[in-house]
Formats: sequence, structure tokens, C-alpha cells
Amino acid sequence: MRASNIHLATFRDDPADAEITSHKLMVRAGYIHKVGSGLYVYGPLMWRVLCKIEAVVREELARIGSQEIQMPVLQPRELWERSGRWAVYEANGTMLQVKDRKQAEYGLAPTAEEVVTQYVDATVKSYKQLPLCLYQVHTKMRDEIRPRFGLLRGKEFLMKDAYSFDIDQAGLDKSYEDMRVAYHRIFARLGLEAFGVDADPGDIGGSGSMEFMVAADIGEDAILIEPGTTYAANVEKAESRVSPSSGAGAEPAEMRVVDTPNIRTVADLEGFFPDIPADCMVKTLLFKAVYLEEERLYAVLIRGDQELNEVKLKGHTGALALKMLTAAEIEQHTGAAQGFAGPVGIAEEFTVIADKTVRPMVNILCGCNRTDTHALDVNLGRDCPMPEFVDLRLAREGEPGPRSGTALRLRRGIEVGHIFKLGTKYSAAMEATFMGPNGKPTVFVMGCYGIGVSRIAASAVEQNATDKHIVWPVPMAPFEVAIGCLNIKREEHLAGADAAYAALQANGIDVMLDDRKLSPGAKLTDLELMGFPYSLVVGRDYPKDGTVEARDLASGERWKGPIDEVVAELTRRVEAGRSGSLTETTGQLGT
Amino acid sequence: MRASNIHLATFRDDPADAEITSHKLMVRAGYIHKVGSGLYVYGPLMWRVLCKIEAVVREELARIGSQEIQMPVLQPRELWERSGRWAVYEANGTMLQVKDRKQAEYGLAPTAEEVVTQYVDATVKSYKQLPLCLYQVHTKMRDEIRPRFGLLRGKEFLMKDAYSFDIDQAGLDKSYEDMRVAYHRIFARLGLEAFGVDADPGDIGGSGSMEFMVAADIGEDAILIEPGTTYAANVEKAESRVSPSSGAGAEPAEMRVVDTPNIRTVADLEGFFPDIPADCMVKTLLFKAVYLEEERLYAVLIRGDQELNEVKLKGHTGALALKMLTAAEIEQHTGAAQGFAGPVGIAEEFTVIADKTVRPMVNILCGCNRTDTHALDVNLGRDCPMPEFVDLRLAREGEPGPRSGTALRLRRGIEVGHIFKLGTKYSAAMEATFMGPNGKPTVFVMGCYGIGVSRIAASAVEQNATDKHIVWPVPMAPFEVAIGCLNIKREEHLAGADAAYAALQANGIDVMLDDRKLSPGAKLTDLELMGFPYSLVVGRDYPKDGTVEARDLASGERWKGPIDEVVAELTRRVEAGRSGSLTETTGQLGT
Repeated sequence: MRASNIHLATFRDDPADAEITSHKLMVRAGYIHKVGSGLYVYGPLMWRVLCKIEAVVREELARIGSQEIQMPVLQPRELWERSGRWAVYEANGTMLQVKDRKQAEYGLAPTAEEVVTQYVDATVKSYKQLPLCLYQVHTKMRDEIRPRFGLLRGKEFLMKDAYSFDIDQAGLDKSYEDMRVAYHRIFARLGLEAFGVDADPGDIGGSGSMEFMVAADIGEDAILIEPGTTYAANVEKAESRVSPSSGAGAEPAEMRVVDTPNIRTVADLEGFFPDIPADCMVKTLLFKAVYLEEERLYAVLIRGDQELNEVKLKGHTGALALKMLTAAEIEQHTGAAQGFAGPVGIAEEFTVIADKTVRPMVNILCGCNRTDTHALDVNLGRDCPMPEFVDLRLAREGEPGPRSGTALRLRRGIEVGHIFKLGTKYSAAMEATFMGPNGKPTVFVMGCYGIGVSRIAASAVEQNATDKHIVWPVPMAPFEVAIGCLNIKREEHLAGADAAYAALQANGIDVMLDDRKLSPGAKLTDLELMGFPYSLVVGRDYPKDGTVEARDLASGERWKGPIDEVVAELTRRVEAGRSGSLTETTGQLGT
Repeated sequence: MRASNIHLATFRDDPADAEITSHKLMVRAGYIHKVGSGLYVYGPLMWRVLCKIEAVVREELARIGSQEIQMPVLQPRELWERSGRWAVYEANGTMLQVKDRKQAEYGLAPTAEEVVTQYVDATVKSYKQLPLCLYQVHTKMRDEIRPRFGLLRGKEFLMKDAYSFDIDQAGLDKSYEDMRVAYHRIFARLGLEAFGVDADPGDIGGSGSMEFMVAADIGEDAILIEPGTTYAANVEKAESRVSPSSGAGAEPAEMRVVDTPNIRTVADLEGFFPDIPADCMVKTLLFKAVYLEEERLYAVLIRGDQELNEVKLKGHTGALALKMLTAAEIEQHTGAAQGFAGPVGIAEEFTVIADKTVRPMVNILCGCNRTDTHALDVNLGRDCPMPEFVDLRLAREGEPGPRSGTALRLRRGIEVGHIFKLGTKYSAAMEATFMGPNGKPTVFVMGCYGIGVSRIAASAVEQNATDKHIVWPVPMAPFEVAIGCLNIKREEHLAGADAAYAALQANGIDVMLDDRKLSPGAKLTDLELMGFPYSLVVGRDYPKDGTVEARDLASGERWKGPIDEVVAELTRRVEAGRSGSLTETTGQLGT
């Protein structure tokens, strides 16, 4: 296309309400225009980006046999009451609600489990019609507490939501696995560095879930990834390998109790006992676990050189909240000052649990609930009851990963997808059944799978942009190549630009010829800001020596050459970039 | 595709709430599924139909340089207040309204003039960026008083709305004309019998508008069309040619008043004066025109053989309502009994107006406001004041059309599109300006152009379906050809179906192979119900003599032949059907 036929508009200043790069740049480059809080017009360039993302999503879903439908945004309250979610969403306030002229109530769909379950219940009679996977790409709405970050947290957004229906859990496992692979392929094809992360199903429920993250510094989630493998986990759930305690395997010695005046921390102990490494010590952390109707005390044993992951502890205890005991509470419950708690002689009101790295430890140095005293050569199960061993340790960047032992890397990520094994949560609540192979009514076993289409676009900007300009990955660029004709009043320039345009089009490249009346500097700044991955600039040299300049925005590389050579090289690069980072193994990713 | 990979579901019974064919058949054939009043899931087949319609719409809009964007469904109240439409929609109750958690109010967009005007105001600085035409294909919502008729009157629907921005009225005229031609091409390409009809701009405002109607018996509008021309008009606005009064051109004779006891109607007069034809008589109809602050009396003269069009009269008088005078009111205001009113000697309180066909009449027979009396050889302007002549006559089917004189045909139509010259209504109200060629801020001159995408699908069913099944026009059929393999357990049958499938696919035909386990009768009934325009049936004969049956659903034609011949003929028919009724002249339609 010629830029004179495209509605382009760029702005010099960052919008006042923008806090992050993608928000600033997408407004300044004219991709989005704010209509209200969290509400945007998608301009023509933005629409091209979204269509390219949607096309990849559609192709990959078709590949696994998922079929496109469309469901209403307006969803009757009665349906959401059948699943029990009306009250949930009313309580958390994230679903916009509307009444029609007859005072009937509707939710503006943030998701569509209820509608799709009702639809499938009405249209699937027999197990012979299963498995079935349906999806839509549609506008969703969410009453965000604080809409911000441009397309990353809007009131209205474009989302792909898919739903699978199976006969049984094994069927769901297969559908879920197909979708998981499709997601990896989608992000790889889009040229995004993304990873699947085991996640907590949370309020959506079900037996398993995985989040898909696009790596970006502004991401709200911290992820540990193991390079060379597909291991990636939220730091709150991540595991790592750790070398066993250096004392492991020794002969158990007899326990001794020694004075350690005012020696309270592992660092203190390392100074006091220079021969005993921290990995032979155990620290004992005391918590109050708060439940609806009661409180329980926990003593948590962690190897001296490791840290507790409180999220893992919370998950294990099932508590609503965890509170560390205060110094006063410690004295009250252990009889000793803070810094001297330990598994030896601890009050029975404590449930004692230990991180798995504690299990092989022999001859431990730890507290024994006596002020200014520690116990040496403690052996669990002998000198105190054997605690339960649980994974409670915080995995850290640099530690060997659980798959191959490669050092873990810490990345921040933006959540762009989430897949869930729902099981029968919705089908049971809504009594959605089919005739099973045994001739009896059977509830559907469901999965649900979301991708934030507009969120992908913003996260791609976050992952690739500089402070000054967007850099689109080729697979979602609004145009793969932009031709900047710097002086459209000079016929030789225009002729060169036209020749390059024709040649790139003939090569099947999605190309824009910028024929706008702008100064050369303004035009180049514009093309850069808008983030086209490659440019071909026809400038002063062209009439002299027939050369044009090529620019690779991601690498910053620039080179000159005659039109045919530059066109050939740009074509080669674009074609190489079109499949993103998809490789033959992407389909097996994440196993 | 293979039917075993498509979610197909058909139902034997009409839905209880369905009143019209398209609603019944689209539910029964599984195209739509009701979620709530006026709310539907579009199933996989429906989605294919909608995508095909959208693709044609997009291609034709791209052809005239219109660019796709997307605007939010949630639109802030403040924006609609700037145009003055919030109050209008609040009063008529057709816009759903919603509050967010901060009590900010939003309308759920039935249309997007405000948003697009604000967007263009923010992004267009200079006349050099104009003309500009933007569109979206998006979900719209309307709080219908009584949602019904399936997709024809829903709460939520799919609509294409386009908006043009020009420097001046001449620019708007060009944009509007481009769009008008694009609309004719869209409907022609979709294979629909449709016509553009001059319409009243109504509450949207502006200087001109045209409705696009798909011909269908259940249509709410009655349209007179002139075959061989592109003339089409709502019967309320239609014109026709009519032969002049047979007495025209005669020498004026002297007026006479004669007794006509109890002779009140044209039919009575024709019996009483057998030598005087009705086209030499004038009937006088008496109305009270009601305005906000007053009422006015009108005496309307219509040629004896013609009928009054009350909508034209209402338009001419500008009244809020028209009421025919009662017998008592006639006596009170004319002094004569009902049936004897006339232009001669009528009270001055009446404004006398006459249809244009009255103008050339000479020596008229009419009433003279005396009971049991008529006047002969009346000549207007001599025997009474000359009235104003206005087009007030009802055009009727069979009368010569205004363009070529071909007899008018009456058709009923479903409105599927509407285009408007908005002028500066919105841009002036919202102070949306650009720098004009004269260097001064100038308000945009706008047009807006809607097409009901989901409505097109339903109207196509209405236009083409039988009582028993849908018949899709080829350009929007979910599949162009369905292959019915009647016995999938027999390998020869499946082999034949597969061969036909491969051959049709190789020919580029969008084909579905129905490989479901169904009885032959059920399968054939299903394929017919779903409305695929062509079928190829592999049945009992195939293993015997290698022949299959072809079916043309629209014509009911069936024939047999070997696979290659049937495939070739079906391919020929599908290819011929793909361009709908588009001809070289469609682009010039409606001039």
C-alpha cells in the first residue's frame, strides 16, 4: 500500500497517562487512540497487527481441530447463576453488568464458560460427537479497578477463548496437551520469546493450569527458566536442584547442647562455628497459619543456606494467611528468645515440617528452644520426632534447573495466555450431559484456553521496543518493509521507490511505500517510530549512483546497494523472519 | 472438510418462539442457538457464512479506499453528550447503558459517530489528509422493545459501519456515491436480489440517505421497483407516470351545478354520469393536520381515478399527525353532508392543495359543498382559487415507472443497509475541525454507512429458502458443495466419496464430505436443511455402475453421471455462482 492511502498519524509527546513503553509508543505511533479509561480505538496499522496475530491463532487452532464460533457479549444473569459465578463476579466487581428495558440483567462477558456449556449441552447428544473444541476471537470486557498500561490492562480487549469437551479425563488430558503445543507454536510463529509456566488454577478451578508468558522487563511475574530445556516456572512455584548438605552421609554423632550467647542467625553461627558450613545448619521459622475458624502454629525447618518460599508454604498449609510469629509470641510459645527456636524440644502445639533438602542432613546444627543455646549433631527422628518433608525452598537464579541442571535464569513475563483443565466444574453445576458409551447420561469433561490477542501485540512491543521506537516481529508487523521515498517531488526518487515497491510486491512482501509529503528527517523518524522491521530508503544517492539504503530495525544494521540487491536481501530476511522462532521441536516444547 | 470434524447439529422441530422462515430454519439447521432474548451463539456453519459475507464487504470497501479500524463497544457518556445523542437514546431507550465500578456511565454502541469523529479530530490535522473513510465490522447492541425474528431483530448483532470525512459537500457527494456503488456491488456479489431506495434521513439527520433492501416476502417495507431500470422506492415515496386526464386540452366550458341526490363517491358519479370518466373527476379529501400548538384544515384534491398517499401529504404539511375529518366535522366546516365537498365555494379556513395530476384537468366534475349537488365543467383558477400543486398521489404496482415507463412491480424488502450524508451534524456539535485549504479551521463534512452483516445472512435465507430448507447463494454458502456418502461402512462408497472430495478440492471448491454415521434418509434431509447449494450423493449405484447423483438445491434439478463428469459440472456451476449477480454494469447501478 501507499502511505498516502493509509491513515497514519504520529505524535511527538508521550501521552500523560502512559507509564510503560508499549503504551507510550503505541499512542505516539498512532496505533491506538484513547476513547476513555481503558478504552481504545485500534487504528488501521493496529488492526493489521491484530489481524496477523489472529490469523496465526486461527491457523494453529484449526490445526488441532478447534472450530470457530461466536458467542454474545451480553450474557443473561440466569446462566451465570447456574454456574454459581454471578455471585463471585458481583463480589469481586470485575464483570460489568447491564439491565435492559425490561429490567432483565446481563453480564458483559469476561469469559464464556456458561454460554458454551449451554450451547454444547443443547447440541451434543452422544459421545460419538466428542471430542469437541470450540473457540471464538471476540471482544471481552472487564471492570478493572484501575485500567492502565494501554492495551495491557484495558476495560475492553480482544481475546481468543477456546473450550474443549471430552468424554473423560484422558480425553481432556489429550485436548489440553494439544492446546498446550498449539500455544507454544503460536508464540513461536509470532516471533515472541514466551514460555509456558505451571500455574495455580485459582478461582477458575480444575485440576491443572499453565500460564503463557511473554518475556519482558515490565512483566508482573518473575519466572525462572532453565535454558536449553523448556522448564519455566513462576518464582513462587519454581524448583531447582541443590547439592546435598556437605555433611550428608556422615556417621551420626551424639547430640550436644552448647552455649551460643546472642548468636541468633545463620550468619552469626557461621562466625561462631567457623568449621560448620551453613548447609549443615537448619533454621527454624515459626508461623501462625490463619484459617476461617482456627489458627495453627507451624515450625518450618530450612537448610541454613536456603530460603523459604512462603507461597509454597501457604499452598501446603492451605491457610488463608500466614503470619510470622513476633518476638513476644516466640517467647510465649517456645519459652526461648527469638533466634533460638529449633526442632529439638519444641512445644507440641507446633506442627513441624521441613524442606526436602533437610531430609538427608546428618549431625545438624540448630536451635533447641533455649535462649543463648544451640544443639550440635542433631539427627531428626532420633533427637526429635521426624517431621514431614515438603518442597518449601525458594529456587533462585543461578541454581541448577530441575531438568538438565543448567543454571536457572530469572526473567520477568507478561501473561498472554492461560489454559485450564476445568474438569466437570461447569458441566456438573449446569447439568450438561451427553449419552456416554455406557448408555448413561455423563457430564462433559471440560478445558478452557485463553489468549489475549490485543495483549500479545502490546507485549510484543514491550519485548522488542527501544525507548524511541517500536520493533515489530516480522510475523505481526503491519508491513514487513517500509519504503521511505525521501523526496517525492523528485521524479527520479519516486521512480526508484516505485521500482523497489514493485519488486518487493512481486516477491510477495507486505510493503508500504511512504509517499507522504514530509521532510526526510520527519519521514525517517516516523518509519522508525512505527516499528516496521525493515526499511528501504531512497535518498540523495539514488539519482547519483543508483544505490538505496536498507535498514534492519532490530539490529540497527544499515547498508547500501542497488535496488535489486537490497530487495533480494530484504526479501531473504523477511522470509526467514516469517516463521518467527518456530522450529521442528516447538511442537514438542514443554514436555 | 469432513463433517465428522465439524460441529453439526440439526433439530426436527421449529423453535417455539420462531415466527419466520429464517429464524426457524437457522435454528433447526444448527446455524444459531438461542442464549437469551435476541441473543444467539453463531455455530461453526454460521460463522463460515458470516466470514464469507464479511470478506466481500471488506474487499469492496478496500476497493474504494476505505480502511478498517476497530472502536470500543463501551462508549463514554460524555462523548454522546457532546453530540447531543445521549438524551435522544435515553429517551427512546434503544441504547443499553452500563456503569463501571466508579459509577462512570457508558453506552453499548449501536453506532459510532461520536467515537470516530473524536478519533479523526485527534488524528487529522490538515485537509491534505482528506478524504478519509474508515470502517469497522463489529458487534453492535440495541435494546429492542421486542427482540424477535432470529437474527433479523436481535439485541446483539454484527454490523459494518463506515464513516467518511471530507473537506466539503462535493467531497461528501463523491464519498457517498463511491459507497453507494460499493453497496450495489456487495449485494450483487453476494448473489442477493437487493435494491437501493431513496429514504428519509430521519433522526440520524443530514441531507440525503438511501436504504438498501433485500427482496423478501416477509420484508417490513413495500417497495415499487421499475424493472430494467434501477428505480426503486418505498411505496410511501414512490412515483409513477400516469396518462393525462382524458379531458385535458378541451375548451373550458361554463360551470354548471346539478342535483346529484345521494351521489357521494367516484363510483356513484360514474354510474350517474356514464359519459364522464373518473379521470375527469376530482375528489376532495378533508383533513385536520395536527401540530404542536395548532391544528390546520386541508382540502386535498385528487383525480377521480387516483389515490392519495398520506405519507406524502404528511411530509408536505409537516404535521405531527393527520386526521380525516369525521362526517360531523365535514358538515360543521363545509355546511354540506359527507360526499359533497369540493374546491368550489369551500370555506376559507381550508388550505386547498391538489395532486399534480389535477393541474392539466379541464372541465372537472367535483363537489361544491352543497348536499346532493355536484359541479360540472369546473376550471380551477376560474371557478375557485388556483390551489398549490404537489405530488400527493399513491403510485401503484402496474403503473408505468418514472424512469422508462415500464410497469412498476411491488416487492417487499428487508433493510440490510443504510447510507447517510451526515454533513456537519456531528463534527459541528463536537467541534471537530481540520486546517482547511484556506488555512482556517474547518469542520469535517461526514457521511455514515451501515450494513447489517448478520442481517444479510438472515435475509438471504428469507429470499431463497423453501418451507423445508435453506438455500444459500453460492457466495455465502458455508460450503459450496456437500458430498453425501450414504453408507460409510461400505468401502466402495467411501472410496467414491473420497475421490469426489479430492477432485472437488483440486478444483478449488469449498466442499464438505459428510462422513457421519447417519441413515441415508437422515443424511440427505440434513444436507438439504442446511442449504448447501450443491450436493453430490454417493449411493447404491456407485458400486454398480460408477455413477453418483448431483443435486442443485435452488432449481431442484437432479442428475446422474460418473464422478468426473458430475464434478466438472458442479465446478462449472459453482464458479459461475461465485460472483453472484455481479455484472459489468452493477458498478453503475442506481444512477
